[in-house]
Amino acid sequence: MNIEILAIGDELLIGQTINTNASWLGQELSKIGARVTRSVVVADDSARIIEALENAYPETNCIIITGGLGPTKDDITKHTLCSYFGTHLEMHPPTLAKIEAYFTSRNRPMLETNIQQAALPVDCEILPNNYGTAAGMLFEKEGRYCVSLPGVPYEMKGIVTEELIPRLLQRFQLKAMYHYTALTQGIGESFLAEQISDWEDRIRARGFGLAYLPSPGLVKLRITSFEGKEDQAEIMQFFQELASRLPEAVFGYEADTLPEVCGSLLKKNNMTIGTVESCTSGLLAQQITSISGASDYFMGSLLTYSNDLKHRLCDVSIDAILSEGVVSERVAMEMAQNGAKKLGVDVCISTTGVAGPTGGSVDKPVGLVWIGLSISGRTVARKFQFGDNRERNIQMTVLSALNWLRYELSQR
Amino acid sequence: MNIEILAIGDELLIGQTINTNASWLGQELSKIGARVTRSVVVADDSARIIEALENAYPETNCIIITGGLGPTKDDITKHTLCSYFGTHLEMHPPTLAKIEAYFTSRNRPMLETNIQQAALPVDCEILPNNYGTAAGMLFEKEGRYCVSLPGVPYEMKGIVTEELIPRLLQRFQLKAMYHYTALTQGIGESFLAEQISDWEDRIRARGFGLAYLPSPGLVKLRITSFEGKEDQAEIMQFFQELASRLPEAVFGYEADTLPEVCGSLLKKNNMTIGTVESCTSGLLAQQITSISGASDYFMGSLLTYSNDLKHRLCDVSIDAILSEGVVSERVAMEMAQNGAKKLGVDVCISTTGVAGPTGGSVDKPVGLVWIGLSISGRTVARKFQFGDNRERNIQMTVLSALNWLRYELSQR
Repeated sequence: MNIEILAIGDELLIGQTINTNASWLGQELSKIGARVTRSVVVADDSARIIEALENAYPETNCIIITGGLGPTKDDITKHTLCSYFGTHLEMHPPTLAKIEAYFTSRNRPMLETNIQQAALPVDCEILPNNYGTAAGMLFEKEGRYCVSLPGVPYEMKGIVTEELIPRLLQRFQLKAMYHYTALTQGIGESFLAEQISDWEDRIRARGFGLAYLPSPGLVKLRITSFEGKEDQAEIMQFFQELASRLPEAVFGYEADTLPEVCGSLLKKNNMTIGTVESCTSGLLAQQITSISGASDYFMGSLLTYSNDLKHRLCDVSIDAILSEGVVSERVAMEMAQNGAKKLGVDVCISTTGVAGPTGGSVDKPVGLVWIGLSISGRTVARKFQFGDNRERNIQMTVLSALNWLRYELSQR
Repeated sequence: MNIEILAIGDELLIGQTINTNASWLGQELSKIGARVTRSVVVADDSARIIEALENAYPETNCIIITGGLGPTKDDITKHTLCSYFGTHLEMHPPTLAKIEAYFTSRNRPMLETNIQQAALPVDCEILPNNYGTAAGMLFEKEGRYCVSLPGVPYEMKGIVTEELIPRLLQRFQLKAMYHYTALTQGIGESFLAEQISDWEDRIRARGFGLAYLPSPGLVKLRITSFEGKEDQAEIMQFFQELASRLPEAVFGYEADTLPEVCGSLLKKNNMTIGTVESCTSGLLAQQITSISGASDYFMGSLLTYSNDLKHRLCDVSIDAILSEGVVSERVAMEMAQNGAKKLGVDVCISTTGVAGPTGGSVDKPVGLVWIGLSISGRTVARKFQFGDNRERNIQMTVLSALNWLRYELSQR
């Protein structure tokens, strides 16, 4: 199935809005095995819209239009499609009822322009919008579909997921692919690929797809079945094998996040946590508390940026600082161990490193970080060597610390 | 001047990459008074590229192509343009020298594919790339320009800013508009507009443009002269008036950030800073230290998330917590005042609030935040009421705290 995307809106052309609708559609349509062959943005102009519809590639099965369905005067898509498909608008009672319910539930007055949004072309299939007032429309002409959707991303996404994709699957006899994604931290993409090459070979031999999706500090591994959800159990077995082979790397699945997974494990173990941070300067605590309800387990932190405060607030020995330097195993150990006592917590994570871009030396280059982890009185520190980008180094430190904590708690 | 943008790449069609190049070009071209009339994405396919060039709108003066200039086999733009414009490739010595210098400076070996990037069409103007190995190309045919640029955003941006825009300004006798932007915090867009309506009227009467650009917690005010930089002094006078009328709101200009401005003021005043955070849980400290060199003034923080730690680490009186609650003026005052002593700093900012989504009450609804500010022993606390979004409330607290600090330090 070949699809073209046509986005309408001056705000897209002048760059006030980024066309994220097109990329989202590209992703979702690829998942059902459809191919996006072109993506076009034109102005709010009838002639331009009709010209784009007429000049679609000959092999196009479906044109998806986004935008121009709002209640204001510059929203001309509906009228343009009526004239292109030779039809006219009529009040559509189910849509009117939906719009009335929408305004009633929000306690807002309904204007005449809102009522007019329920006037829809008679010769099209209405795709209900459960998230706003502009319904989707599905036209058919000479074997080619033309779909008109609102430009507001969450309304457009709702209609596509709930109304459009099921129809496309049915009419084009496509099979929805099934995807499941494991999340890993701490192993680079190419190194990971090397370690699991036999696992990957077996996945491919079975006819599944495997994608490595790297993002800063993380690699996601997505297995795809082209046959659909019936292969779910088999895919889960592959992931179970992965998790048991790389327990330190695999921290979750799908939309899991490290702060969430760590929070659940802390609650399960009935443990409290705090941090003593230097190079991350609060980002670790901030990530832990990004989860609502974190006050159940997170107590607080000491951000000991200066050497003086490392000593005064956290009893880091002056000897350790002078003989080993602040970025050292011993200082990281003392920070975590003393921090647990000072904060009165079961788990304490410490960070000390050279975030950069300045402050590096031959012995302690930019990107060197020591992380300390104290759990129930047992303290260990680990050395990490990241890169030369300050922001990235701080983020990598936080991800590494949380994933290490996750692994240790999961082993209990 | 009418411009079309043509982006080439399968990764854009399947949604792996978002076409931010198109929106950036739309913004920059609008600034010089050019109009983007269409933006198209096609696959890495010669026939599709040529079809797009041939079907440009008749009034198009310039087509800007992005992507497909890399060293790998799927990068076909250069060859396609040679065949479209009836020319051929020849080694371009200045570009080859640039590529050689690029690899030498990075200490990386140069491959044959890299050398081939210096083979460029003979009948075009070369637009040097100072950020990578793929040069830009400017063709002219029947009075219409066609520009080919690499898809890597910072390389594309570099060539557009340094090479393309100056040529467009010259050849189309355009005048670059002049923009200058003031940054405000703490006053909502509509309230701000009301307060400065006479100022706005005078700007518009003078023939300048004024845009309100809101982002979470901030409103940017951009004045545009359509005549160019010659109006700079006059625009600066308008901004000086704005800053003297709203000294608590205007915190900087152009690319300034609150952590930067606060850092400069702390250095200028030779002061050190620390924080005692509850609801922001480290984000304030993390923002302050996002500036390299923050260790000159930032010493450290106490993140007292639990009530117990507010008392134990920061001497917040149990009486204050029990009688006024942790989210109160008195607790915010004690946190800031005692924190300054505990941390040994000149300036201490405290935060305590109900970030939400849970934890609110009738007296202390979600979004209520007290911020304390202690400067050289003088401590004040202020009450803020934000909304019901946890993440937003935390960000607003940090912005409000930094802007308050900025204002107080600027008055010294």
